[in-house]
Amino acid sequence: MREHDLVVIGAGSGNAVIDDSFAGLDVAVVEERWFGGTCLNAGCIPSKMLVYTAHVARTVSEAGTYDVDAELSAVRWRAMRDRVFGRLDAEREEGRRARREADFVTVYEGTARFTGPRELRIEGPDGAVDIKARQIVIAVGGRPSVPPPVLDSALPYETSDTVMRIDAPPRRLAVLGGGYVAAELAEVFAAAGSSVVIVEKEKRLLGPQDETVAERFTELARARHDLRLGREVTAVAGRPGALRLGLDDGSTVEADMLLVAVGRVPNSDRLNLEAAGVATHDDGRIVVDAHQRTTAEGVFALGDVCTPVPLKHVANREAQVVAHNLRHPDDLIEADHELVPAAVFTRPQIASVGATEQECRDRGLDIVVGEARYADVAYGWAMEDTTGFCKVLAERGTGRLLGAHLMGPQAPALIQPLVLAMTLGIDAATLAKSPYWIHPAPTELVENALLDLDLDLWPRA
Amino acid sequence: MREHDLVVIGAGSGNAVIDDSFAGLDVAVVEERWFGGTCLNAGCIPSKMLVYTAHVARTVSEAGTYDVDAELSAVRWRAMRDRVFGRLDAEREEGRRARREADFVTVYEGTARFTGPRELRIEGPDGAVDIKARQIVIAVGGRPSVPPPVLDSALPYETSDTVMRIDAPPRRLAVLGGGYVAAELAEVFAAAGSSVVIVEKEKRLLGPQDETVAERFTELARARHDLRLGREVTAVAGRPGALRLGLDDGSTVEADMLLVAVGRVPNSDRLNLEAAGVATHDDGRIVVDAHQRTTAEGVFALGDVCTPVPLKHVANREAQVVAHNLRHPDDLIEADHELVPAAVFTRPQIASVGATEQECRDRGLDIVVGEARYADVAYGWAMEDTTGFCKVLAERGTGRLLGAHLMGPQAPALIQPLVLAMTLGIDAATLAKSPYWIHPAPTELVENALLDLDLDLWPRA
Repeated sequence: MREHDLVVIGAGSGNAVIDDSFAGLDVAVVEERWFGGTCLNAGCIPSKMLVYTAHVARTVSEAGTYDVDAELSAVRWRAMRDRVFGRLDAEREEGRRARREADFVTVYEGTARFTGPRELRIEGPDGAVDIKARQIVIAVGGRPSVPPPVLDSALPYETSDTVMRIDAPPRRLAVLGGGYVAAELAEVFAAAGSSVVIVEKEKRLLGPQDETVAERFTELARARHDLRLGREVTAVAGRPGALRLGLDDGSTVEADMLLVAVGRVPNSDRLNLEAAGVATHDDGRIVVDAHQRTTAEGVFALGDVCTPVPLKHVANREAQVVAHNLRHPDDLIEADHELVPAAVFTRPQIASVGATEQECRDRGLDIVVGEARYADVAYGWAMEDTTGFCKVLAERGTGRLLGAHLMGPQAPALIQPLVLAMTLGIDAATLAKSPYWIHPAPTELVENALLDLDLDLWPRA
Repeated sequence: MREHDLVVIGAGSGNAVIDDSFAGLDVAVVEERWFGGTCLNAGCIPSKMLVYTAHVARTVSEAGTYDVDAELSAVRWRAMRDRVFGRLDAEREEGRRARREADFVTVYEGTARFTGPRELRIEGPDGAVDIKARQIVIAVGGRPSVPPPVLDSALPYETSDTVMRIDAPPRRLAVLGGGYVAAELAEVFAAAGSSVVIVEKEKRLLGPQDETVAERFTELARARHDLRLGREVTAVAGRPGALRLGLDDGSTVEADMLLVAVGRVPNSDRLNLEAAGVATHDDGRIVVDAHQRTTAEGVFALGDVCTPVPLKHVANREAQVVAHNLRHPDDLIEADHELVPAAVFTRPQIASVGATEQECRDRGLDIVVGEARYADVAYGWAMEDTTGFCKVLAERGTGRLLGAHLMGPQAPALIQPLVLAMTLGIDAATLAKSPYWIHPAPTELVENALLDLDLDLWPRA
């Protein structure tokens, strides 16, 4: 049985653990599917590329708002898909090639299962191989969750893993789920010409967002899509290409295609973790301590298989932490999961950091709320935006920033000064008043939301 | 002669000095032209609204890049103009009305000239009135500078004051000057269908920008406009609507319309400042100390008539300083002119803060340079951007940020975390590593430029 110094299972974010500083070691990487992982192949990146194309198509459709006469003929889906995945598949192969050519790295392409503590069997196209390792990193990510009525029907369905690579947008798309994946992909397909029905069990889309964001986004989505909120799918019938979803109120949804986007589950169940002594939470996430160590000696985990915050920028940070901790057992560092910003690249764009207003209320915090609308700043006039806003939450008295929530153009960029301020403990008044905010840049939205806070003490100028 | 407690000359940024906390005083405002000043009526705001429309038109023209089939029929100039100025003229009238209705404010509509220390004669449509004041604020702004060959020709020309309100874009527009006003308006008119010739005496457009920005922007502009760089206009001939510009190399430029955008001069020369004891610099700017006090007792100045940095966000800050200092002579505060960010809303957008690389070199600073390209971050892939970049300059060793320069989509928003960091003395490594940067948001461009810096010491993770 070959013994490696380090085995990394999963070449998504796990691949980022290994750099040339490991060159003195005997390292192995196991990947069963996609170098680059979910993000590159079926997640953040292709969805952003497709939704940007949707943004271009929408800009054409709405050009009249700006007194520009334009006509949208078509979104050439197949060309778009090939442009996007032509680039990303090449990136994936480049990542794969680089790993295979690194002389200190062995690449195993196959599925890994633990056979004992720090012992693995890898089943690949050429048979099985058993290996052991001094240290192991588990970074096998997650996969889309599929509810029983869909599985039971044995009818075809798509997930984020597959739907972006299809040959043509369906005429009628049913989306199961109302979270960020659903919101982004509904926008992609609507812009490409699909009529979209969204079935979501909660009363609002994007439920975990701040309540104002979720409410206003849901209202905007209602104008574009057929929303079936507070409803669950109880059965899927019909035939491929002509599906009929039965909902729990007795109503039905007809669709050519079903996209399941109700959440994701960790891939921990595929690893035979019992043999390794690696414990999991009830929800399937691997238990890790603040240093990304699992319950098994010498075994670390990172990314969607363990994290409380399944976002790529968090997985990247955890990979840096693991890379350090593997080599510095006496000087362990921690990843921060407290102030993680997130964005939804739908229409309009959404970005958030910190607590929502409902969380502040539930915690009994004494807060002040500042809000500004794009429609009240000059760049918002230029964009003719009538729905976007920025909301900031701060502790009454001190002005300590607790959360920020934006909906509108450039929101994922506009939030960054708020992220920086919250991370470094810069209070609302200092953030508003110390730096200049360019006039008339869209950042004035954030400045105005801060200035709208009813603080006891503002600096003099 | 009526005596007021406070007279503010100029209802642009000057108008912002007065809020309800002055209600106990007898205040007057003098405005000869436009409530809201240059910014609202002929500057930052209408230019951004027009250039955003240009951006929409360009997006339509270039939709094929994203596999979107679209056709641009027309930019309806007159409708666009009326949309923009319909909104802005209403804002101006609302500002005027609000001032006229404030019972502690007297509005004089006319031109003011000093007749003595803190004494003014105002000439308006109904004749002249003489007033005096305990305190005076001069905020009369500036105006476009027009070079002698243009004036001497007695032929018509436009400036930023007039060109945005014309009835139709010219077939051939000659732009005199290659600064930010020229760059923004050239883009507006090119998108509206004009063919544009830019005559600029320097070898590059946007000369005061960082050299990399100026170089690359000039190259991009060369592909769209007819650039005559290193050239000066020596004569303007022809007739209205068929102008012929003679350049200093003997070449000529034929144009239907001439836009003069070679810079601005302060309006100090219209005030008879000698009578007031208010001194000016050689360039016409009123001399002020750090507290915005002129050389005359009780007379303050703010904005383009005095500032070293003629930008609206600086004028706003100076207005806050003046508002404070008028009432707190024993507790004077200062405006900061050190770290003033600026943006050019052309194509591509540009934003900058702090020193340029050439300034660092001229000062003999030992610096490291970090650069990242939009083309190397995922959101740049989505935008299919191939030319944009972010460049950061930091002190070698310490990582103290000295300057940042961005060219590309959303640059005026992306720069704000850098502005905040520089203002509060947050070093490059802390800025890069402490906050999360959302993946895959365009902010990753800034993160990557920071990570590209060759610093001696990076934090561990």
